[in-house]
Amino acid sequence: MAYLPAELIKKKRESGELSEAEISFFINGYTRGDIPDYQMSALLMAIYFRGMSEAETLALTKCMLFSGKTVDFSSVPGFKVDKHSTGGVGDKTSLILGPIVAACGIAVPMISGRGLGHTGGTLDKLESIPGFNIHFSLEKFVQAIRDHKICFIGQTPEICPADRKIYALRDVTATVESLPLICASILSKKLAEGIDGLVLDVKFGSGAFMKTPEDAEKLARLLMDVARRYGKNVSALLTNMNQPLGRYAGNSLEVAECVDLLQNKRHPMTEDTRELSLQLSAQMLWLSGAAPSLEGAYSKCEESIRSGQAFKKFLELCRLHGGDLSGLPVPRKNLTVTADQDGFIQSFDTEGIGYAGIQLKAGRARTEDKIDPVSGIEFHKKVGDAVKKGETIFTLHGNDESLFAEAAKRLSTCVTYSLQKISAPVLIIKSLS
Amino acid sequence: MAYLPAELIKKKRESGELSEAEISFFINGYTRGDIPDYQMSALLMAIYFRGMSEAETLALTKCMLFSGKTVDFSSVPGFKVDKHSTGGVGDKTSLILGPIVAACGIAVPMISGRGLGHTGGTLDKLESIPGFNIHFSLEKFVQAIRDHKICFIGQTPEICPADRKIYALRDVTATVESLPLICASILSKKLAEGIDGLVLDVKFGSGAFMKTPEDAEKLARLLMDVARRYGKNVSALLTNMNQPLGRYAGNSLEVAECVDLLQNKRHPMTEDTRELSLQLSAQMLWLSGAAPSLEGAYSKCEESIRSGQAFKKFLELCRLHGGDLSGLPVPRKNLTVTADQDGFIQSFDTEGIGYAGIQLKAGRARTEDKIDPVSGIEFHKKVGDAVKKGETIFTLHGNDESLFAEAAKRLSTCVTYSLQKISAPVLIIKSLS
Repeated sequence: MAYLPAELIKKKRESGELSEAEISFFINGYTRGDIPDYQMSALLMAIYFRGMSEAETLALTKCMLFSGKTVDFSSVPGFKVDKHSTGGVGDKTSLILGPIVAACGIAVPMISGRGLGHTGGTLDKLESIPGFNIHFSLEKFVQAIRDHKICFIGQTPEICPADRKIYALRDVTATVESLPLICASILSKKLAEGIDGLVLDVKFGSGAFMKTPEDAEKLARLLMDVARRYGKNVSALLTNMNQPLGRYAGNSLEVAECVDLLQNKRHPMTEDTRELSLQLSAQMLWLSGAAPSLEGAYSKCEESIRSGQAFKKFLELCRLHGGDLSGLPVPRKNLTVTADQDGFIQSFDTEGIGYAGIQLKAGRARTEDKIDPVSGIEFHKKVGDAVKKGETIFTLHGNDESLFAEAAKRLSTCVTYSLQKISAPVLIIKSLS
Repeated sequence: MAYLPAELIKKKRESGELSEAEISFFINGYTRGDIPDYQMSALLMAIYFRGMSEAETLALTKCMLFSGKTVDFSSVPGFKVDKHSTGGVGDKTSLILGPIVAACGIAVPMISGRGLGHTGGTLDKLESIPGFNIHFSLEKFVQAIRDHKICFIGQTPEICPADRKIYALRDVTATVESLPLICASILSKKLAEGIDGLVLDVKFGSGAFMKTPEDAEKLARLLMDVARRYGKNVSALLTNMNQPLGRYAGNSLEVAECVDLLQNKRHPMTEDTRELSLQLSAQMLWLSGAAPSLEGAYSKCEESIRSGQAFKKFLELCRLHGGDLSGLPVPRKNLTVTADQDGFIQSFDTEGIGYAGIQLKAGRARTEDKIDPVSGIEFHKKVGDAVKKGETIFTLHGNDESLFAEAAKRLSTCVTYSLQKISAPVLIIKSLS
């Protein structure tokens, strides 16, 4: 059955509910190139304003999922679980929880993304390890999961081509911030991985796409509802992104932070990374049925670090991908940004910190930008910490000093002080299951 | 100064007010082809939802107006006035009021449009006269106005290229029905004509784009406000399009109706066409200062018909454009649609009647469709008229009988009956000046 694209756009514009057949006509027509970009962007903007019902979101997800290949894990026994984070600054938990969960015997097939805008991307971090190759065929990916329980690849052209094309369009037409569009984009890719369970890290705050806990919870519930309709075990943590996570933001710097944590080296600035990684790992183990309780799962995860099993798995992962961890590059130059008054850290403009990272080339403003794997920002204080005037708040790291001045200037505007004691914010405010 | 198109789309999406520089960047960039269709359509949809301030509408109109050439009438002395109708079914007043006003000595430079969707277009009507050529250069147009006070041409490529490109995009992206976009599209073209005064016929009802008098008045006031900012004398009539205007809808049929009226031949079914044409003509004369009062202007217009001057001007117009009125084609076949009950005409689905006209090829669904100049619909009843079962309501006219069945079927659904007496609706509900 054929429809007129303009009539479907008008139907959505008038708050109508599109049928599965109508959504499928539009999405498949667009993916094939029969429906032009300008009609898709008008529909996306109408969806931005009018939203979508759960049935529409489900149909959109399905359509995007089946626009390409899905990974077939029927040859790999056991539960497969993944984690998805909605993105933040300094968010490197995938590199820690992947090895932890795999070391506990549960398969973690991860199709990851690159950083865009102020948030970082797992693939960029891994590629800062010399030789680390994420370009596996889907066959090799399945083989690696069977043999090693863990493997990281990027979204291949065969996976969700509709999402690739639509995401690129949303990026340039100001239609990114729409719950049903975000939901369909995330879940189509995750469902294509062939997983059985999914843990969601839905972030809120100044460094997240969702600015409030309420919006984050709405997205989390939508994602969970749709994932469950596909028979997936799913849970979600709502986590605070009002300050950067951990000690570093920047690709090789974050790998170094992960290596320290996997080697059970603690540091006051990395306690949040450790705790969030353990909590997410525990959720993953618990969903997989590998532990009788969440508490038991958490202990198992801690133990896999303490015993060295998780780090061993990380080294195995590096070998699998041809990465040479011993050659991890180290930045040669640095510049500190200091407090301009006494007091307590009141807040960070975490998105602004992410953009300072882009100025250092630790991230990219546009997909075609090149990044510098060693550059990044070190954090010395968390919200609530006492500071003295002149004390270091940030250290800029990198090899190209010419980039430091602008980034430092921006960073100095990304922190506010209070004269009164501020309490440290709660990292994980809610667990949904 | 350069902007990021996606940021401007986002600004409008978030209800922000775009500056004149921002609007100009976007519209000029789009017209030049630097900004792609998909970003313009996203912006148009955001404007559909968020609207535009008067300042934004003014800037948009200005930008579209100056995207091309404007007609220079400095060599032609005296007031130039035009009329714009927002479109309806059977609306042929331009062909009557143009000759009336020109016969009264006031110049009427008309850049007209073609029919699209359920509404008719002046150029299609004129072109049903054999040989009638509307393709004049702007120089020849100015010359004709100087010599004859009247001339009809189509929108040339030099006039408002931004509007041409944007209108085509709006048509296929469900972004037509937006007051500021309608306003900028109408006024940029009318202002490019180089006129001093403009009378607006803003229609409401089942056959108009604006369904309610309230929406029509909103549009009328917006158009008047913006036109006045350009120093134009402007007035508006809010007129009823809940039933077709006059006796015919269809190109050569409507010309015949106009010829009868210009020859002062009266018919009960054409009294509304006559009255609306006279009222609009009177507004035009009055705006031009050629009459001391609206009543005086109306009498002058009536007199120009009675004296034969208006019809003489129409014949002069035909000669100017190479049209042979004596060869006006007459349809050879017809089919009647009759009342299926006794009672009174309660209402017409005027838009549906327009679409029946498209089925007869009297109008076009898409710009590239060919029309048949002789086909059309004759109306035998107005709202409030008494009917007997079996009495004729519509007559289909044309040369291709194979098109009649479908159109007749649709027409029979476009009328509703009442057992109680219904009063005739008021044709002109409000005059704004």
